[in-house]
Amino acid sequence: MASRFLQVGTKIIAVGRNYAAHAKELGNAVPKEPVLFLKPTSSYLENGGTIEIPHPLESLDYEVELAVIISQKARDVPQPKAMDYVGGYALALDMTAREIQASAKSAGLPWTIAKGQDTFTPISSVLSMAMVPDPDDLELWLKVDGEVRQKGSTKDMIFKIPFLISHISSIMTLLEGDVILTGTPKGVGPVKAGQKITAGITNLVDVQFNVEKRRGQGSS
Amino acid sequence: MASRFLQVGTKIIAVGRNYAAHAKELGNAVPKEPVLFLKPTSSYLENGGTIEIPHPLESLDYEVELAVIISQKARDVPQPKAMDYVGGYALALDMTAREIQASAKSAGLPWTIAKGQDTFTPISSVLSMAMVPDPDDLELWLKVDGEVRQKGSTKDMIFKIPFLISHISSIMTLLEGDVILTGTPKGVGPVKAGQKITAGITNLVDVQFNVEKRRGQGSS
Ligand SMILES: [Mg+2]
Ligand SMILES: [Mg+2]
Ligand SMILES: [Mg+2]
Repeated sequence: MASRFLQVGTKIIAVGRNYAAHAKELGNAVPKEPVLFLKPTSSYLENGGTIEIPHPLESLDYEVELAVIISQKARDVPQPKAMDYVGGYALALDMTAREIQASAKSAGLPWTIAKGQDTFTPISSVLSMAMVPDPDDLELWLKVDGEVRQKGSTKDMIFKIPFLISHISSIMTLLEGDVILTGTPKGVGPVKAGQKITAGITNLVDVQFNVEKRRGQGSS
Repeated sequence: MASRFLQVGTKIIAVGRNYAAHAKELGNAVPKEPVLFLKPTSSYLENGGTIEIPHPLESLDYEVELAVIISQKARDVPQPKAMDYVGGYALALDMTAREIQASAKSAGLPWTIAKGQDTFTPISSVLSMAMVPDPDDLELWLKVDGEVRQKGSTKDMIFKIPFLISHISSIMTLLEGDVILTGTPKGVGPVKAGQKITAGITNLVDVQFNVEKRRGQGSS
């Protein structure tokens, strides 16, 4: 059951630069194959929760994304069969410490600290397959304090869901409850402590998250 | 129970460049803070298994490492308490597609495809705490076809286990069964199809793995 993904999932595979206009806004080339990175399941945050900005950062970037929830073990799945491995969808945010990511990129280092901290993957409840007849035609939106910052269609994804499942499952086995974050449309930008993010898939789901500085953080 | 880590764990956090002599052999600076990256639990391979080289690669690099198994949820753990969160140890290999990692590094991209494929984390059974009175004084070794390629002591780790647990738990919550790979001593190098790796911790455990080209891989 896709609705148990928070309990049973063991990984989040995120796709970078999957909308041409977003790749461009960050000054990146449109990729020839998907840019993939992992986020830990410990980074999930449920609807209504508080996104935490770790010390000493002043902001995090939001990225609104369609999440695809895997329903069963998938290895070397051909594209025509790929949708058999989808158990549902969700709306997710791929929160990013952009300054940390920028220094990691220029030093040739992994993105883990920029992408993997607790509360960095806010996510909605599960949308069943019946609720989403056409995942390639969904409008994703995100507002900060009520002001629209991102609005885009999954139509503009460079690599579509069946391709992503086929490709990723040729690299690593996908398991029940694993989640693919399919990339963000243009309009990413910073949020600071005290701001509120609302986001959704038009006519299907919406979520809201507060943003605060993290407290009680160790000094190491 | 640490012995269930293959079933219950949700992440592998690997430390890069944690032995000065290894950082140097790859031409990297010794880091001021740990280089961290994630490997998925789908990359585990149990003792006796076959490491698979994905198409079109001709070899993978081995890296022998001490694995630390987390026994309970850990967040913002201070160094003096850190060992309370260790449930056991294991010997692991951090298999690496070095050419893919090299292009990722120069393009500022994540290491996920270079580090996260199925069979890229061969691992031994669990060593109990009682079996490992001093994890900072273990000799790790690795042979290819019977010839010694790596031999080093955990004494030479730059960041020690309590620091790593404290530091990582300040970034992301560690959960029961999660594994920290603590980095590799010098001597890394390639293995090809048909070769055999043996590796161990002197007087404690040893493992062996065959190496073959991956079959049945999708074309995407
Ligand atoms: Mg993203
Ligand atoms: Mg994981
Ligand atoms: Mg390593």
